[in-house]
Amino acid sequence: MTATLLQRRERLLGAGAPLFYREPVHIVRGEGVAVFDPDGRRYVDMYNNVPCVGHCHPHVVEAISEQVATLNVHSRYLHEGILDYAERLADHHHDGIESVVFTCTGTEANEVALMMARLATGGRGIVCTNAAYHGNSAAVRQLTRPKDNAGEVRSIPFPETYRCQAQDPLNWHLDRLREVIESFKRDGIPFAGTLLCPILANEGLPDIPPGFMAQAAELTRATGGVFIADEVQAGLGRTGLWWGYETQGVQPDIAVMGKPLGAGVPVAATAASRELVETFRRGSGYFNTFAASPLQAAAGNAVLDVIENEHLRTNVASVGQALRDKLKELQAGCEAMGDVRGHGLFIGVEWVQDRAAKKPDRAGAVRVVNAMKDKGFLIGNAGAFGNVVKIRPPLVFSSVDAAAFLTAFEETLGELPIK
Amino acid sequence: MTATLLQRRERLLGAGAPLFYREPVHIVRGEGVAVFDPDGRRYVDMYNNVPCVGHCHPHVVEAISEQVATLNVHSRYLHEGILDYAERLADHHHDGIESVVFTCTGTEANEVALMMARLATGGRGIVCTNAAYHGNSAAVRQLTRPKDNAGEVRSIPFPETYRCQAQDPLNWHLDRLREVIESFKRDGIPFAGTLLCPILANEGLPDIPPGFMAQAAELTRATGGVFIADEVQAGLGRTGLWWGYETQGVQPDIAVMGKPLGAGVPVAATAASRELVETFRRGSGYFNTFAASPLQAAAGNAVLDVIENEHLRTNVASVGQALRDKLKELQAGCEAMGDVRGHGLFIGVEWVQDRAAKKPDRAGAVRVVNAMKDKGFLIGNAGAFGNVVKIRPPLVFSSVDAAAFLTAFEETLGELPIK
Repeated sequence: MTATLLQRRERLLGAGAPLFYREPVHIVRGEGVAVFDPDGRRYVDMYNNVPCVGHCHPHVVEAISEQVATLNVHSRYLHEGILDYAERLADHHHDGIESVVFTCTGTEANEVALMMARLATGGRGIVCTNAAYHGNSAAVRQLTRPKDNAGEVRSIPFPETYRCQAQDPLNWHLDRLREVIESFKRDGIPFAGTLLCPILANEGLPDIPPGFMAQAAELTRATGGVFIADEVQAGLGRTGLWWGYETQGVQPDIAVMGKPLGAGVPVAATAASRELVETFRRGSGYFNTFAASPLQAAAGNAVLDVIENEHLRTNVASVGQALRDKLKELQAGCEAMGDVRGHGLFIGVEWVQDRAAKKPDRAGAVRVVNAMKDKGFLIGNAGAFGNVVKIRPPLVFSSVDAAAFLTAFEETLGELPIK
Repeated sequence: MTATLLQRRERLLGAGAPLFYREPVHIVRGEGVAVFDPDGRRYVDMYNNVPCVGHCHPHVVEAISEQVATLNVHSRYLHEGILDYAERLADHHHDGIESVVFTCTGTEANEVALMMARLATGGRGIVCTNAAYHGNSAAVRQLTRPKDNAGEVRSIPFPETYRCQAQDPLNWHLDRLREVIESFKRDGIPFAGTLLCPILANEGLPDIPPGFMAQAAELTRATGGVFIADEVQAGLGRTGLWWGYETQGVQPDIAVMGKPLGAGVPVAATAASRELVETFRRGSGYFNTFAASPLQAAAGNAVLDVIENEHLRTNVASVGQALRDKLKELQAGCEAMGDVRGHGLFIGVEWVQDRAAKKPDRAGAVRVVNAMKDKGFLIGNAGAFGNVVKIRPPLVFSSVDAAAFLTAFEETLGELPIK
């Protein structure tokens, strides 16, 4: 059956449409932290951050079902749902975030952020990291691991302390940022801003030199740019705080949100001061047919309800910390686990060929991911070198779920050919 | 209440977030062809092409509700729903359309089409019309009424017979296309393709010189490009045929679909030959978190069910034709109605200062639109000069609905200060 499905898929979506695992999983049902295949086999979903309050949460299902039965229409009529939602999102941010531009995907939200930064500053130059991914459109794609530092988008080595050889990693990385901003000036490209995931999720969740994000924001503003936090992966309780930027003690000018907002209804948003948003509105005439709709509002409000009412940030902080602590214990007995890190329920384990050389072992990470899938736990691999085992269960993941995962993980360590 | 809502909206979405009508409408409920304000006032929705099978169609509501209660997850696992949907979409196209790349919005689908055309041809140059709109991202935005013909995106005057002074409008317009393609060659920009809405919806639904689209496609291919039909507005039964390109007797290499596909669930798609799609997959590594999901599939399949089972294309063709015929009768007594045209249930009435001079009267069109709103009928204005009254009811619009509209429209003609 899987072979037939695979063939159909290649024909209808085209060979090369991305697919996970050596032997792909066929999923037909989801509930809470689990998804199920057609034979009823249960997998614990520790990868997806879209169903952040758990698969098919009854409150979210009800809100979506009720709204699609009542009204779903574009935002050029008045509707209260989206205003309530914008207000709640803004209220969970720092005081400088007041107004919201809704879109459907993180890519679109980053498109808006780039246009906003460029309209507000009159600049063009954008800084990202050398292992970034912020979306799939032509403009946002320029931020995917930029190859040279010659165009309007230039990169800095992503700030981290695991491999950095410098005596003072904080200032070494700030100097790289300063250099790139100066290179824009030198090349006659006015600077527009810095766009970073505040926890560097795609880079592999490295430990960031403390103070880097705050000082990078300061430097960005002092040189005429705006500081953009891409919260698509880091935001909405994932770290145990509302936003990834809170873990770094920085307040962005623009916050970009996506993935978890709508529990699978495409919802994304770019939030900023009212002044920045209105500069964008005036300069762009932006309209997005499916965005700011009653459906987006219903889904978004329901997800916020659950996070608030079920105190999920507290759960994320405590279960996440315990999981990381236990993984660090396992690390002591496993040379290949080079580094255990992350925030809340977003954990990265760096797989290396040996602990001292820190040489990335992507194949090793992939083996772990596939072995864990066979044991019924869905995780992934990511990071600058593809060697970081990425653990990101729903925010409702419990300590019982964590214990089951750890048992399987420890078993896997014992079974795999790990040096 | 409306004033308070407006103030809140300006604060939370930013002043400048687009809004319809001199006095905006506050909508809380939809059913079939109608939407309702909080006081229960009924408006006939003759603008929205998203709820194309009618607002809150029970079959669609049930399919969406059932799917969100069962599973909604990204497409890197196997799932049959999206394959069934891709197959049905492709089957409704000409034989050369075999495979589908799903996205969430028309903008994203046009991003994919542009990347696909450029990867397949190795070219960069894209031709659109001088009154086009295909989306809001930085790359697709280049196709919004391009200002000069100096860059990678260049325009031709949109092909039409109403104002065209040439003896032979077909060949005059084909010559313009030939010139622009040659200008790319001259400027060292390899040609990638032509991207047009096959019924020129944003241009104002003009009568297109018969044969233009087919010969434009031929010319595009003969000069190394691919021909892209943007079916976001024209497609899915809107014209009485499945696709707008069928009204013009042309078979595009790439078909871009959006708005009506998911009845308000963000769904869009770019379809082409398997070869083109796989060239795109290989060249881009494209992935879209919310796209090709079980939710998109459920919504899309349900919309197709309704169009097929309720024979909506037949309804569109007959009600649309009768509506256009009756509007043409009214035109005889109204100098301002310069031209009545369109396809199926997508009708444009060109408002002019006088019938002979054909000088566009945008203010007149806006007056009609606002007066009709006050009578309970939601229509809009569009077109190259903003003077085309745009009539686009759901595909379930009946002859009884049409009669009610025509009565109100005739009344409006009698009341307005129309020369």
